[in-house]
Amino acid sequence: MGVKVYGPPMSTCTARVISTLEEMGAEYEVVPIDFEAGEHKQPPHLARNPFGQVPAFEDGDLMLFESRAIARYVARKYKSSGPDLLREGNLQESAMVDLWLEVESQQYNPAIAPIVYQCLVIPMRGGVADQKLIDANVEKLGKVLDVYEDHLSKTKYLAGDFFSLADLSHLPYTHYFMATPYASLFESRPHVQAWWQDLSSRPAVRKTAAAMPTSR
Amino acid sequence: MGVKVYGPPMSTCTARVISTLEEMGAEYEVVPIDFEAGEHKQPPHLARNPFGQVPAFEDGDLMLFESRAIARYVARKYKSSGPDLLREGNLQESAMVDLWLEVESQQYNPAIAPIVYQCLVIPMRGGVADQKLIDANVEKLGKVLDVYEDHLSKTKYLAGDFFSLADLSHLPYTHYFMATPYASLFESRPHVQAWWQDLSSRPAVRKTAAAMPTSR
Ligand SMILES: N[C@@H](CCC(=O)N[C@@H](CS)C(=O)NCC(=O)O)C(=O)O
Ligand SMILES: N[C@@H](CCC(=O)N[C@@H](CS)C(=O)NCC(=O)O)C(=O)O
Repeated sequence: MGVKVYGPPMSTCTARVISTLEEMGAEYEVVPIDFEAGEHKQPPHLARNPFGQVPAFEDGDLMLFESRAIARYVARKYKSSGPDLLREGNLQESAMVDLWLEVESQQYNPAIAPIVYQCLVIPMRGGVADQKLIDANVEKLGKVLDVYEDHLSKTKYLAGDFFSLADLSHLPYTHYFMATPYASLFESRPHVQAWWQDLSSRPAVRKTAAAMPTSR
Repeated sequence: MGVKVYGPPMSTCTARVISTLEEMGAEYEVVPIDFEAGEHKQPPHLARNPFGQVPAFEDGDLMLFESRAIARYVARKYKSSGPDLLREGNLQESAMVDLWLEVESQQYNPAIAPIVYQCLVIPMRGGVADQKLIDANVEKLGKVLDVYEDHLSKTKYLAGDFFSLADLSHLPYTHYFMATPYASLFESRPHVQAWWQDLSSRPAVRKTAAAMPTSR
């Protein structure tokens, strides 16, 4: 029996898990959660994730939440059927995977998430974006991407010359970011742009992204 | 030859790495970085960590940054000389370690860090704390701790009935938080309080905390 992912496939954190399942060729079922109806804050979902967020994950008796932890689990469990996304057999390579996974979560995500939220989510809900907040985060993201540009001029992927979970974990927000007026932040940095083109043309990534519409 | 940690031992992220080295019984050297002089933003340190932050870490040719990634590396490298902090040999246990490490980084840290910053760091620098910001984060942290209280009533440590990196990673901010007027958030939750008492009485943790003064 396959595993279950609870959450809307278009939500960024859920997409992180789905793309990892796709990369590993795993069998899985997506159980939709009705966000508009607040289903994620009701007891059945709180039993899956006590913080009332998506995604949640079920593999028999094992229940997990936190997208990056679930993605690690999926990468380990299906290791024999897909790419070695964590490199745990190699002390130095696994350290570089962990390092760039942390960079995604601690440096990249805090800058890119507010831009996507302001440029795409708020207008979808009929609100007005906060341009000051956008500008501050565009500047912040530019500095992060300067580090990426320099780094990716030395190695093809973030953790080295091999594709890893650190790259894949950038998919969800980058996909949406490319539909904002700030996509030029990538185009003006050739190594970052080439890295994103490589990443976004992977079959698993394309399949995941097909369920992530950038407008209604 | 031992490994090197670059950063002031009193900084929270540096303390995360030092406490892990202490737990594992590793030999290491701390290379102080002069924050007040802006040493972390100058070329020699930027070569260690391109984001201009502490800590950075050196093990021969391997250079690392991001405290949680370094801590994982240390736990793996010295696995035979200390506790098994990651449980990578067990698919389910390692998933629970990863999950609660993510909870620390994604839920706990964003709530507790601003409280510590406002209550301890700003007054040390002669500034005035933002009470509204403190109140909002005390409320947020309270909700996070409600989840911990419920969870820790079922297992002794966060990832299960074994001590792991997920517990240890909570040390730095919790240590400082206990010196703020909001320590009662712990005292009013008996399982959380017992967990912290257990954690903070570990010899490695006490040694790390001894270099983290809560006032000048
Ligand atoms: N750190 C969590 C974040 C999860 C998260 O923020 N999920 C969002 C959707 S992308 C959500 O459920 N938001 C609703 C809420 O926080 O109430 C993860 O990586 O899984
Ligand atoms: N996510 C990083 C955060 C590092 C960090 O924020 N370090 C602080 C000290 S605790 C720092 O260097 N601040 C100076 C700055 O960001 O300019 C880690 O875990 O290592």
